[in-house]
Amino acid sequence: MPLSFSFAIKVYIEDTDAGGIVYHANYIKFAERARTEWLHAHGIRHYLFQEDYSFVVSHLEIAYKKPAFMGDLLIATVEPINKTAATGIIKQSILKDTILLAELTVTLACINSQFKPRRLPPEVAVLFDNIS
Amino acid sequence: MPLSFSFAIKVYIEDTDAGGIVYHANYIKFAERARTEWLHAHGIRHYLFQEDYSFVVSHLEIAYKKPAFMGDLLIATVEPINKTAATGIIKQSILKDTILLAELTVTLACINSQFKPRRLPPEVAVLFDNIS
Amino acid sequence: MPLSFSFAIKVYIEDTDAGGIVYHANYIKFAERARTEWLHAHGIRHYLFQEDYSFVVSHLEIAYKKPAFMGDLLIATVEPINKTAATGIIKQSILKDTILLAELTVTLACINSQFKPRRLPPEVAVLFDNIS
Amino acid sequence: MPLSFSFAIKVYIEDTDAGGIVYHANYIKFAERARTEWLHAHGIRHYLFQEDYSFVVSHLEIAYKKPAFMGDLLIATVEPINKTAATGIIKQSILKDTILLAELTVTLACINSQFKPRRLPPEVAVLFDNIS
Repeated sequence: MPLSFSFAIKVYIEDTDAGGIVYHANYIKFAERARTEWLHAHGIRHYLFQEDYSFVVSHLEIAYKKPAFMGDLLIATVEPINKTAATGIIKQSILKDTILLAELTVTLACINSQFKPRRLPPEVAVLFDNIS
Repeated sequence: MPLSFSFAIKVYIEDTDAGGIVYHANYIKFAERARTEWLHAHGIRHYLFQEDYSFVVSHLEIAYKKPAFMGDLLIATVEPINKTAATGIIKQSILKDTILLAELTVTLACINSQFKPRRLPPEVAVLFDNIS
Repeated sequence: MPLSFSFAIKVYIEDTDAGGIVYHANYIKFAERARTEWLHAHGIRHYLFQEDYSFVVSHLEIAYKKPAFMGDLLIATVEPINKTAATGIIKQSILKDTILLAELTVTLACINSQFKPRRLPPEVAVLFDNIS
Repeated sequence: MPLSFSFAIKVYIEDTDAGGIVYHANYIKFAERARTEWLHAHGIRHYLFQEDYSFVVSHLEIAYKKPAFMGDLLIATVEPINKTAATGIIKQSILKDTILLAELTVTLACINSQFKPRRLPPEVAVLFDNIS
C-alpha cells in the first residue's frame, strides 16, 4: 500500500513577494520538487533522463488555505490517488508543522518523444496500484 | 458589459525549463501579470498600494493544453465570471495566436490588513457586475 | 556606430521579495530580456534557435545603486563595448526614468554544440564593431 | 578563524532553462540561500526579522566556469573575506563534487529602516574578524 511521501522545503527570500508571504505560484514549484523526490525515492530518475517517455502536468488544482513566510520549514506530501492508461493523479499538501497551508491535485500526462500520449511505464504505473 | 481583457506576454529563456518548454508554474505568473494590468486598465492600483484591502489567490485551477516555447508571443486574457461578497472569480486563457495553450479559473479572496475576509471594495465589485 | 539599445520592463509582484523591493537576482533576468530583444532588433534569433553556436554568460558584474519597486516601469539598456574572438562584452543599465538603479557588465562566451569556445558568428561580431 | 561554510543545493527542473542547463541567474539565488544558512548557523536570523538593520546586495561579481544540470547536487560555500564599517564582502563558490562551477564575490551593505547605510551590527561584524 503506497504511503504518503513527505519532503521538507525551506522558504528563502527568493520565494516571497512584496506582500510578505510566499508568492502563490511558488507552491507549484514546491509541489514539483516533492514529486521529483518521490519518484527518486522509488528509484525512478526524472523524466528528463528517460529516453522513451516524459511527463507534463495536464491539470492542476490548488486551494490556498494559509500563507507561508520567509524562513518557514514546510512539508510537501505526495500521494498517488488514481491513474488511467496514460495519466497519473496525485494529491499533494503543503504543511507547516501540522497546519495545512495548501492542497493540490495534479494530473500528470505521460507523453512520448513526439509529445503524444503514451502508456505509463510499468515502474511508474505500479506506484498507483493498491492505493488505499 | 465587461469584455474579456487581453494582455501580451513574451516568453524569455528565463521562463523555460530543460524540457524545452515554458515551465508549468510560469503560466500562473503570466496570468497574474494579466490580472494586474486588467485592474490597472480599470484605474485600480495593485492591492499592494491599497491601505484597506488586499487580495490573495484562494483557489486556482489550470488545464494545460499545449506547450509554449522560447520566443513565443502569448496572449493572456482576463474575464470576470462570478463573485461573492468577499471573492471574485476570474476565467483566464493563455493563447498563442488563436491556439489555446492553457485555461485557468482563479478565485481571488479579498482580505483586510489582519488577513481576515472582507467585502470587495466597490470599484472592484463593479467589475463583476452585468457579466454577460 | 552602434547606439545604446533600450527596452522597457514592467515590475510585477512576482519580481519582488518580502523586503518590499525587486529581488536582486531578477535584475539579471531583466538584463537578459533586454539582450534578447537587442539581438532580435538586429535580426538575430535567440541562440536557442541557432544550429552552430550558442551563448553562455561567462562573467557578470552588477552594481546595485537603488531599489526598484512593484509597478515600476524600468528601462534596461544594452551597449556592446568590447569583443575578443570568442566573447562579447556588453554594458547594461537598469533605469527608472533617468535614475540609475543598477549597472551591469556582462561577458558572453560563444560556444559550439560541444560546449567548446568558438568564434563569434559574423552577424554578432559586427554588432561590436565601430564602437564609439 | 572563520572557516568556509558549505550548504548543499539540489537542482530541480524549475532551476533549468531550455538550453538544458541551470539558468545563469539562479546561481545568484543559490548563493543567497547559502548566505542565509551561514548566518543562521551563527545564530543570526535573516535581516527580514531584524528591527534595526537590513542587508542589501550592493555589488556582485560572478564568473561562470561550467554548467550545472537537472538533478545535480551542488555545494554553495560562504567565506567572509573583508569588511568596512557598513559593508561585508563574501566570497562564494558553487561546486559539483570538487569541480568549481562558479565563483562569486558579493558585497552586502547594511542599511537602516530608512534605507540609509549603517554600521554592521556587532554579531555580524564579528563574522568578518580574524579572517585567515
